[in-house]
Amino acid sequence: SRSIRLAVVAGDGIGPEVVAEGLKVLDALGMKIEQTPYDLGAARWHRTGETLPDSVLAEIRQHDAILLGAVGDPSVPSGVLERGLLLRLRFELDHFVNLRPVRLYPGVETPLADTRPEDIDMLVVREGTEGPYAGAGGVLRKGTPQEVATQESLNTAFGVERVVRYAFEQAARRPRKKLTLVHKNNVLTYAGDLWSRTVDAVAAEYPDIEVDYSHVDAATMFFVSQPERFDVIVTDNLFGDIITDLGAAVAGGIGLAASGNINPTGAAPSMFEPVHGSAPDIAGQGKADPTATILSVALLLDHLGLADEARKVEQAVADDLIERQGAWAARSTREAGDDIAERVAG
Amino acid sequence: SRSIRLAVVAGDGIGPEVVAEGLKVLDALGMKIEQTPYDLGAARWHRTGETLPDSVLAEIRQHDAILLGAVGDPSVPSGVLERGLLLRLRFELDHFVNLRPVRLYPGVETPLADTRPEDIDMLVVREGTEGPYAGAGGVLRKGTPQEVATQESLNTAFGVERVVRYAFEQAARRPRKKLTLVHKNNVLTYAGDLWSRTVDAVAAEYPDIEVDYSHVDAATMFFVSQPERFDVIVTDNLFGDIITDLGAAVAGGIGLAASGNINPTGAAPSMFEPVHGSAPDIAGQGKADPTATILSVALLLDHLGLADEARKVEQAVADDLIERQGAWAARSTREAGDDIAERVAG
Ligand SMILES: CC(C)[C@H](C(=O)O)[C@@H](O)C(=O)O
Ligand SMILES: CC(C)[C@H](C(=O)O)[C@@H](O)C(=O)O
Repeated sequence: SRSIRLAVVAGDGIGPEVVAEGLKVLDALGMKIEQTPYDLGAARWHRTGETLPDSVLAEIRQHDAILLGAVGDPSVPSGVLERGLLLRLRFELDHFVNLRPVRLYPGVETPLADTRPEDIDMLVVREGTEGPYAGAGGVLRKGTPQEVATQESLNTAFGVERVVRYAFEQAARRPRKKLTLVHKNNVLTYAGDLWSRTVDAVAAEYPDIEVDYSHVDAATMFFVSQPERFDVIVTDNLFGDIITDLGAAVAGGIGLAASGNINPTGAAPSMFEPVHGSAPDIAGQGKADPTATILSVALLLDHLGLADEARKVEQAVADDLIERQGAWAARSTREAGDDIAERVAG
Repeated sequence: SRSIRLAVVAGDGIGPEVVAEGLKVLDALGMKIEQTPYDLGAARWHRTGETLPDSVLAEIRQHDAILLGAVGDPSVPSGVLERGLLLRLRFELDHFVNLRPVRLYPGVETPLADTRPEDIDMLVVREGTEGPYAGAGGVLRKGTPQEVATQESLNTAFGVERVVRYAFEQAARRPRKKLTLVHKNNVLTYAGDLWSRTVDAVAAEYPDIEVDYSHVDAATMFFVSQPERFDVIVTDNLFGDIITDLGAAVAGGIGLAASGNINPTGAAPSMFEPVHGSAPDIAGQGKADPTATILSVALLLDHLGLADEARKVEQAVADDLIERQGAWAARSTREAGDDIAERVAG
């Protein structure tokens, strides 16, 4: 089989540690991988002022997929790396689907009382290339009492329809066949109306799928009180950001939450990353849980059509989680990676 | 003592039922109240097409405070009553503080495992008159594949500073003296920067207050994993909407969550309402929990400087909640109101 060309952006903080374990697990599958590491993140910005040079972006495009660790450091002004590197990759590579499974694995402790694994099994399809993340907005009379700062959410029929269609496709493949739109269409009436009309229109092509709507505020409530309400969720970029962190929390913590930034057209490589950030407070100490990155590798394999390998990785993680019995055992990042890689290889 | 002029907007769904119990408790205090009921909401809109006529708004202004039940009905297009009535009241009366205590009362069941009342005691100060709620935005080429829909978040130094100051004042009066800004300043950089700079500037005047920052996505995680992290939270209109519903959920449910829409200048009456909506599915059945409305009455009393009366109502609710032992007992809305009113009177 041909080898996979993988661009690796380990990034900041715990990024390099968790990415190393993700790659270890990939190796354990015995696949041919050509890795290209890219030195991007806080260190490069301090050294050169660059976040993502055009030439690097052009190179990254030549890969089959991207594995990303985490981006962001307190030494860099908030937003510089997030907008200049992470979001730039998502936007330039047209990752219009930000796929975030929210699933409570057996053996994992949830902060919710009386909640079982079968109660939490959702797939959040978060839009990735527009909405409030467009970067539109500005500031007038900065630093004066007359300052005005704006942020604009840009939503297009094109952008909404393609991600809604993707979400329906996903819902059609799942046993429950339910799709919930999460928005705030009673306040954000222009954008909310576009999203609601689009869901209604596409729903007509999927008569088997049960369609539901929840305001984002109510959705956060249901995440803790009735998570079993949800199967597939489709939502905008900002609401998706918020509810998937909450989803991670109820499904046992950010150390387990995987994500894929997907361009389903294949016109550019998709990018896989843990939902967690760079966690500078624990960086370099071997304390980070690599599981989220390893599960992101499973999403990567799925995206490349390697379903058997993806299932192997997921199963290894599932078995490891049961063995761990909920508590994050006294293992280093590396030992956790070793344990999972061993299961994958074995 | 002079009597309180109270405008009563019972509204839709369970609104009238819960408002009746709030008024019952107010009566039980033996205070002189001049109530003016306003017939606003879905029924009026269907009858006349009006949401909030200017003449009614002018009348409402002549009151000391407003008690509101809930607004919204499935028979009315989403947003019509929310924007035309509820948000219009908040904006016209310049309710720039949306005050939402999040507190786990003893005896109340929380969906969080291992969480005690002392872990959840926050005060969310949500901005109420700008941000993404401004209503700015528009739609182009509606209904075509080229549709573009925008929503604009408008943030002003004037608007942010006044609510941030209010939040610092509140933090200064609480034992923990901690204030957390919740925003998303790594993505919404223009607005986030204004909020962050404003908090930093005001913080210099409050050296005793510990100041913290959390991205909204992380904040939702902390609400379920470490709610004890928070004391006073200050945040924008949309983030405040989302996290206070989540806060209600972790503090035992939307049936207990009170709020005040406050104009601290006194230039217009403030408005008190339960955080929950109109819940049309259970309307008219006596199933709604009036506690959130009764706690909103306590906030109303506090706002009018009637602290002793406010404490009496809060204490009556606290005692009732302990007696109920977490479970929403087999009481009707009216019986629950009777029980609490009796404690207040006794
Ligand atoms: C780091 C930040 C820009 C990012 C986002 O908001 O999308 C993160 O929170 C995420 O969810 O991947
Ligand atoms: C009904 C709706 C407009 C309102 C809001 O979004 O503010 C409600 O959710 C609330 O929190 O009071």
